[in-house]
Amino acid sequence: MRKVCVIGVGMTKFGEHWEHGFREMVVEAGVRALDDANLHGEELEAGFIGTMASGRLIGQEHIGALIADYMGLNPIPITRVEGACASGSLAFRQGYTAVASGMHDIVVVGGVEKMTDLGVNEVSDILGGAGDQEWELFLGATFPGLYALMAKRHMLDYGTTEEMMAAAAVKNHKHGAKNKYAQYQNEITIEQVLKSKMIADPLKILDCSPITDGAAAVILAPMDIAKKYTEKPIEILASAQASDTIALHSRESLTGLRATQVAAKKAFETAKLQPKDIDVAEVHDCFTIAELMAIEDLGFFKKGEGGKATLDGRTALDGEVAVNTSGGLKSCGHPVGATGVKQIVELAWQLRGDKETEGRQRKDAKIGLAHNVGGSGATAVVHILKGA
Amino acid sequence: MRKVCVIGVGMTKFGEHWEHGFREMVVEAGVRALDDANLHGEELEAGFIGTMASGRLIGQEHIGALIADYMGLNPIPITRVEGACASGSLAFRQGYTAVASGMHDIVVVGGVEKMTDLGVNEVSDILGGAGDQEWELFLGATFPGLYALMAKRHMLDYGTTEEMMAAAAVKNHKHGAKNKYAQYQNEITIEQVLKSKMIADPLKILDCSPITDGAAAVILAPMDIAKKYTEKPIEILASAQASDTIALHSRESLTGLRATQVAAKKAFETAKLQPKDIDVAEVHDCFTIAELMAIEDLGFFKKGEGGKATLDGRTALDGEVAVNTSGGLKSCGHPVGATGVKQIVELAWQLRGDKETEGRQRKDAKIGLAHNVGGSGATAVVHILKGA
Repeated sequence: MRKVCVIGVGMTKFGEHWEHGFREMVVEAGVRALDDANLHGEELEAGFIGTMASGRLIGQEHIGALIADYMGLNPIPITRVEGACASGSLAFRQGYTAVASGMHDIVVVGGVEKMTDLGVNEVSDILGGAGDQEWELFLGATFPGLYALMAKRHMLDYGTTEEMMAAAAVKNHKHGAKNKYAQYQNEITIEQVLKSKMIADPLKILDCSPITDGAAAVILAPMDIAKKYTEKPIEILASAQASDTIALHSRESLTGLRATQVAAKKAFETAKLQPKDIDVAEVHDCFTIAELMAIEDLGFFKKGEGGKATLDGRTALDGEVAVNTSGGLKSCGHPVGATGVKQIVELAWQLRGDKETEGRQRKDAKIGLAHNVGGSGATAVVHILKGA
Repeated sequence: MRKVCVIGVGMTKFGEHWEHGFREMVVEAGVRALDDANLHGEELEAGFIGTMASGRLIGQEHIGALIADYMGLNPIPITRVEGACASGSLAFRQGYTAVASGMHDIVVVGGVEKMTDLGVNEVSDILGGAGDQEWELFLGATFPGLYALMAKRHMLDYGTTEEMMAAAAVKNHKHGAKNKYAQYQNEITIEQVLKSKMIADPLKILDCSPITDGAAAVILAPMDIAKKYTEKPIEILASAQASDTIALHSRESLTGLRATQVAAKKAFETAKLQPKDIDVAEVHDCFTIAELMAIEDLGFFKKGEGGKATLDGRTALDGEVAVNTSGGLKSCGHPVGATGVKQIVELAWQLRGDKETEGRQRKDAKIGLAHNVGGSGATAVVHILKGA
C-alpha cells in the first residue's frame, strides 16, 4: 500500500445555518479544501462523503451523486459512507484506502450534516437511530440517557466526579473560544457547567455537544504526488476501525468503549508509535464523560484516571497531550457526519502550524490522533497523522 | 493492486417478508455466503453493507455496526455504503478495493433492504430521496414519472414501442419463473403487460419493478488465498463507477444514462474486453425502459436498437448476451440496497454453472457483467467477472 497524505483542508463555520442549505455547505467546504491544496476540481479522481441521516433530516439520500453534481465534478465517482456519528472518519478511511491501493491518486473526502431544520425532539429521535432502534430508542433510551449510564458507572467504579467531567467542557470551550469556525466561541466555568440544566443525571446541558449544521473536506494524495501541491503534506500513518455491540446493555463494561480500545491498539501498532508520542488529539466528546473514557481507552491515561487528569490540566494545550484543540464536539459543534472530517482538518492545521490555529496552537505538534465514535461506541475509528 | 475473487455467495428469497426483520435477513444471507465459501466468521477481516434508506424505512442507521453485532463478527469493522439503488454494488466496490489494496484478505459484502413494513405511498416518497429531493420529488416527480419521461423520449427518437418494453418484462419473468429466490416466479405475456394498469404513461405496472424485502451477501478474497476455499473462484476483472446530475432535467440526453456509458467504457478498458465478450449480464431494469437503455449504454446494441433487440430475443438465455437470468429487478424483485449484491450472486452462480441456476443457466458462461444504477442514473456501477 502506498503512503497517503492530506494535502488540503477546509470547513464551514459550524453552527445554526438557517441561511445555508446542505448543498451550499458541502460546496463551501470542498472549495476551501481545493483552494488550500492549490488544486482544480478536474484533478480529482474520486470522492467519499460521510453523512449520517440526510434521508430523515432533509429527505435526501444518494448524497454522493448529489455532491458530484453540485461540486461540478461529474462524472467522477463519489460514494456516501455512513456509520452514525463516525460517518466522517469512515469516509476518510475509504478515501485513504482508495489512494493507498493505487486505485485513485487525488481524492476528496467530505463530511456534512444539516440538523437544525427540524425540532430538537425530532432530531433526538433521528440520532437515536445510531443506537439500537428496537431495543434502546423504541423503549425510550436516547443518547444522553445512554451516556449518563456510562457516567454513573464510571463515577461508581473510579470515583469520577461531576467536576472532573465539567473540566473537559471548560477546556474545550477555552479552545473553541479561539476557533472562528466553532459554534460556541465563549469560555465557560466549572461552576456554570455544574449549575446548568440537568438533561440525564449526571449529565447537564453543558456536558452535552450541541445540534449543529456544518461541513468539512480534505484532499488526499499519494506521498510522491503530494509534494507537488504542498510543502507540508500530512502523512496518514495509520487508519483503524472496530465494532462493538450496537446496544449498550450487551457490553461487558460500561466504563470504556471496547471498539476504541481495539482500534487504538491497531492504529498504534501500525504507526509503530505509543500514546505518549501523540502531541495533539481530537477525541469524540459527544458528552464530557465520552472524552474522559476516550483518553483512557486510547491509552493516554490509565482506566479510571481520565477525570483527574482532565481536572489537573494534563490534556490542556500545554499538557502531556493537547486534547480537542478545535473545541471538540462540545464547543466547535457536532454536525454528526462532518465531525470525523473536521477532526482531520484541525489536526492538519495543528501539524502544519497553520495561522488558523492562532491562540490554540499546540507548540511543536508533530504527531496527531483523531478518534471518532459512532453511536454509544458500536463503531470507533482512529487515525494517526504526522506533520512534514 | 491484487487480483480479487468472489469465493462464496448467498441470498434470502426476495419478496414480502412480513415474518422476517432486517437483522434476520442479513444474517440468513451472510451465513449462506459463509457456508458457500466453507468459511467461519472468525476468518473475516472486514465487511461492507449496502442499504439505501434504513433510517426512514425502519428507523435504524449505523447498519454496519448492527450487522457486525448480529452476525457475531465484533470487533471487525463493517461499514455501510449508500448510493440509492446502487448501494449494493458500491458496497461490493469498497470490498473489492479493501482486498485489492492489501488492507484486508477476506471480506464480506452484503446488501439489504426492508421495504414492505410501510405503505406504498410512504415507500415511494422515501425512494424519491434517490433523485433530487428539492427539484424533483418536492414538485411531485416520483420514479415511475421520471422513467416515463425517458421512455417517451426513447419512443420519439428511436421508434421504441410499448411492446418492445413489455418484451423485457416477459423475458425476465421467464427467467424468474426458474429462480426459487425470485419474488415473482410466474411467466407473463406481452398482452398482459400491455393491458396492465397504467402507472405513468407509457409505463404500466408490469413495466415496473416491485417493492421488496431481501438480502444478499458475497465473500471476497485475493486470488492466491481464494483457491484454498473454492475450486471455482470468480475473478473481478473490473470495477467502475461514474456519476451524472442528480436531477433528470439537467441531462443532455434523456434516452441514455451517461454514468452507465462512462462506467462501462472504463470497465471494458480495465478488463481488456468488449461488449461482445460478455456471456451473461445482470442489468438494472427498475423499469423496462431502463433495461432497453442499459443494453444500449453498455454497448451490447447501438443506441435506439435495444427495444427491437429485446423483442427479437437477442437478450434471451440463448441470445447474443443473456440479460437478467435472475429475473432482474422486475421478476426477482428489488430490495434496493440488496440488488447490486444479488446481481453478483447470480453471476457467480452462472459462471460456476451452479445447480442454483437450473433451468436458466446460460450455456458455457465465462464472462459476466453487473450493472447497477442509483436514482434516475446519477450513479452507475459496472463490474466484470470471470469464471474459473
